[in-house]
Amino acid sequence: MTTYLITGSARGLGLALVSHLASLPRTEVGTIFATSRQDNSPALKELVTSSSGRVVFVPLDATDQPSIKSAAQHVEQLLHGNPLGVLVNNVGVQRSTKGGVEKMEDLNETFHANVTSTHMVTQAFLPLLRKGDRKLVTNISTTVGSINLAHIYQPNSYPSYSITKAALNMLTKQYALGLADEGFTFLAVSPGWLQTDLGGGSMADLPVATGAQAVTEIMQKATTAQNV
Amino acid sequence: MTTYLITGSARGLGLALVSHLASLPRTEVGTIFATSRQDNSPALKELVTSSSGRVVFVPLDATDQPSIKSAAQHVEQLLHGNPLGVLVNNVGVQRSTKGGVEKMEDLNETFHANVTSTHMVTQAFLPLLRKGDRKLVTNISTTVGSINLAHIYQPNSYPSYSITKAALNMLTKQYALGLADEGFTFLAVSPGWLQTDLGGGSMADLPVATGAQAVTEIMQKATTAQNV
Repeated sequence: MTTYLITGSARGLGLALVSHLASLPRTEVGTIFATSRQDNSPALKELVTSSSGRVVFVPLDATDQPSIKSAAQHVEQLLHGNPLGVLVNNVGVQRSTKGGVEKMEDLNETFHANVTSTHMVTQAFLPLLRKGDRKLVTNISTTVGSINLAHIYQPNSYPSYSITKAALNMLTKQYALGLADEGFTFLAVSPGWLQTDLGGGSMADLPVATGAQAVTEIMQKATTAQNV
Repeated sequence: MTTYLITGSARGLGLALVSHLASLPRTEVGTIFATSRQDNSPALKELVTSSSGRVVFVPLDATDQPSIKSAAQHVEQLLHGNPLGVLVNNVGVQRSTKGGVEKMEDLNETFHANVTSTHMVTQAFLPLLRKGDRKLVTNISTTVGSINLAHIYQPNSYPSYSITKAALNMLTKQYALGLADEGFTFLAVSPGWLQTDLGGGSMADLPVATGAQAVTEIMQKATTAQNV
């Protein structure tokens, strides 16, 4: 019975992950901490209400250090000494740039939202992850962050997204290498091009539930052999 | 006769590049704009003085947008309508983190210094590069920014350097793809592990002059075939 914490659960992939995890047997998935900046998602409220206490909402703004630390303290209290099994860093932004890369003005802001946020959340929840045996951290990434595949995605109208996701992949690698000896598994997972607000809605390849199911399967099967 | 502009010329690889370029025949290398935040490098002053006007100091803080714009205007005036041939984005910082990646606190700052600086300088000098035929931009990178090679460099005591250089490589790729049709060549070059302050002094593999010579040869041979 593994506990999960998912950032950015108000909508999109985060919400779909909470929903899918909550549909799995309690022998596999325990408490699900669904975090979001604001408690303003009717769909998430419905999931919390109908879950009989299994889905717990925790306010967490992944771009704000005090909010993250407060959320970590909150979750620690709720866990009553038990470990957090899996952390899913799902928060991210994708902004488009008109006129190509040379017109890009949102690089620092997007880096903070996509990379530094992931780092700060990981830092804050490491003590709770260390208490357990699962020790899995999943960072939601994208093939658009791959330098090798970049030629496929040109013209790229969201260069700051690609640049910061390449950095996120290296952040994941640095954590994977740094914490391998402790039995951690760090994954950077591309969920596919999903029909979310970030993904561009109905233009995208896949229903969000398909992505959530695939990411969950990857997480459930992941062992330290997938670390690095 | 190609004109060059090099950022971070007060010391290290930047200074060595200016020195090496100034030793080459005027048929190959024209005016060299040596930029730095402050005019406080005796070695650079000596190069400027002994160059009979070929090496020109231009104040430029690559982390500061107004300073960059002012430098671009200054260089435009000095060029009297001629193009800038080659831009070398050499500015960068490497900070170490004690206690591994989870203790890293300098991610945003290092990203600004290593990636956003390169972007802002490139943005500002594109109009002068577009005037010419050479259209070469060289971003100084490192093998430590390669995700594929990351396992070789563990334990990595400068995770923010690796993470931001991975992002710099993708920035380079986005520019390469975006401006290929205009005949630009964007390179991300690893100069080797050099005996500079950043590189760790005498512990490093190579004298800085060796790196400067190698980078110059790569730049001189580079064509649009090396773009992307």
